[in-house]
Amino acid sequence: MSLLIIGSVAFDAIETPFGQTGKIVGGSASYISLASSMFCDRVGLVAVVGEDFDFEFLETLRSRGVDTNGVQVKTGEKSFFWSGKYHLDMNSRDTLITELNVLGDFDPIIPQEWESPDFVMLGNLSPGVQITTLQRLKKRPKLVVMDTMNFWMQIALPELHEVLKMVDLLTINDEEARLLSGELSLLKAARKIQSMGPQYLIIKKGEHGALLFGPDNQIYFCPALPLEEVFDPTGAGDTFAGGFLGYLASQDTVDFSVMKKALVYGSSAASYCIEKFGTERLQEINKTDVESRLKLFHELVAI
Amino acid sequence: MSLLIIGSVAFDAIETPFGQTGKIVGGSASYISLASSMFCDRVGLVAVVGEDFDFEFLETLRSRGVDTNGVQVKTGEKSFFWSGKYHLDMNSRDTLITELNVLGDFDPIIPQEWESPDFVMLGNLSPGVQITTLQRLKKRPKLVVMDTMNFWMQIALPELHEVLKMVDLLTINDEEARLLSGELSLLKAARKIQSMGPQYLIIKKGEHGALLFGPDNQIYFCPALPLEEVFDPTGAGDTFAGGFLGYLASQDTVDFSVMKKALVYGSSAASYCIEKFGTERLQEINKTDVESRLKLFHELVAI
Repeated sequence: MSLLIIGSVAFDAIETPFGQTGKIVGGSASYISLASSMFCDRVGLVAVVGEDFDFEFLETLRSRGVDTNGVQVKTGEKSFFWSGKYHLDMNSRDTLITELNVLGDFDPIIPQEWESPDFVMLGNLSPGVQITTLQRLKKRPKLVVMDTMNFWMQIALPELHEVLKMVDLLTINDEEARLLSGELSLLKAARKIQSMGPQYLIIKKGEHGALLFGPDNQIYFCPALPLEEVFDPTGAGDTFAGGFLGYLASQDTVDFSVMKKALVYGSSAASYCIEKFGTERLQEINKTDVESRLKLFHELVAI
Repeated sequence: MSLLIIGSVAFDAIETPFGQTGKIVGGSASYISLASSMFCDRVGLVAVVGEDFDFEFLETLRSRGVDTNGVQVKTGEKSFFWSGKYHLDMNSRDTLITELNVLGDFDPIIPQEWESPDFVMLGNLSPGVQITTLQRLKKRPKLVVMDTMNFWMQIALPELHEVLKMVDLLTINDEEARLLSGELSLLKAARKIQSMGPQYLIIKKGEHGALLFGPDNQIYFCPALPLEEVFDPTGAGDTFAGGFLGYLASQDTVDFSVMKKALVYGSSAASYCIEKFGTERLQEINKTDVESRLKLFHELVAI
């Protein structure tokens, strides 16, 4: 099945207790594309970059089967740039620089051959761009997944509510779930968010794993692997979403039971992502590597 | 098998976003006794209270099969008292009052019939008292479990290291594990703490579940149940330890595989504890109630 990804393809500069990078490739859609294309052989990307971008990265995506025809290159403009510094515990970070650049007036143009995808992943972008993307599709996809963040809850809540009504699954972290719902209990928060639109909800808890909520009060919990070293958490959530969705898109049916498996694939992919800076580790691994860690997840919770 | 518990039996006054209590019964050993006696029919308690204590509570313990002959009552003295206030997120709290009272010079006198228990649980007390307790036993128990807290790492680290060498299993929360080991990665922290003495380690992560580490790099993760309401988290960690140990003491063998099951029993017991203030909910439930939630734990992680 085909998977259309829309999100940021950008530059990051990252500082962790272990070191720091110059400008390296980042952006939600970069991670999602790398992770999903390990499992799904029809992945298309819609994004925008400036003429300063690292075009070798797009070549890398193409070599992994990602159709990059939907990546607009804006002459005379600069790519989106984010810079952040992680605290010692690696669970929190400060944003040092955010330069929207080409993302400021991003108009998501969808190539004709991608107007009827089976799956859509709306990476973290303004709710307005997410809505426009869905409106431009020729038919309702089988599954629409969206990511968002606290920033949009603060400055674009009405639009966020609008796009929530249009999607099947929302991925969000625990803090954001509490903010969006106004509920402290994640169980109550999940029910409230599901009543806003998405039938499915994934609450990401970083090193504490992820919860999947489905219809009829179904819940599934997938732990994160306890790791020796967290080198750089940047992109772990997007890699998780990409692995999850890539696996789903490779399956014939989509239901709660298949999503549970997909969550483990996503978590396994994310466990690699954090081993090196940025997308570096993801570029070294393939489906077999992700599958080789699935056993560890099962052993971790098996009685 | 027999289980000897040593720890605090005390008064607490608790404030949460949902309300506040006057002086109610608290203390590590109160929770551990209530939880463990649901599974183990030979539980003995060593503790100290003042003449102001609520002696009906000791009667409650006896009605549940706990031998309270080791509970010293100090005439003219007051029971240990702790008062705390939980923040809105219920994950953190401020201590308002700590009055050591009878706990200040607690001499753990072990009744003769309890000098050779099969299992020992050293609740959170000064490492000095924990050591004295073990020295007064006639034979090495089959399993010695200890709990501790950051406070003892700050003021009695050498004694803490001494008692760590004498025990088989340490329970500790994630923050304390990082403090004790100086390692950020829980995996590295666990290995370091295991090298300090205890063959087994349980890292408690509150609403994020618990990790069990055993010999040969064995790891097991038990989630916490996602709950509608956390009313009062006080005593959840001790209830968890009590349920864990009570179940273990009811089994013929003690190994990593049985401990995994025991962890789920402990988590189930803890999920009840937090539903009401103090020990109230634990006093209402029995083994069957704890067992009725085991299914939920299995469903939560089953693929």
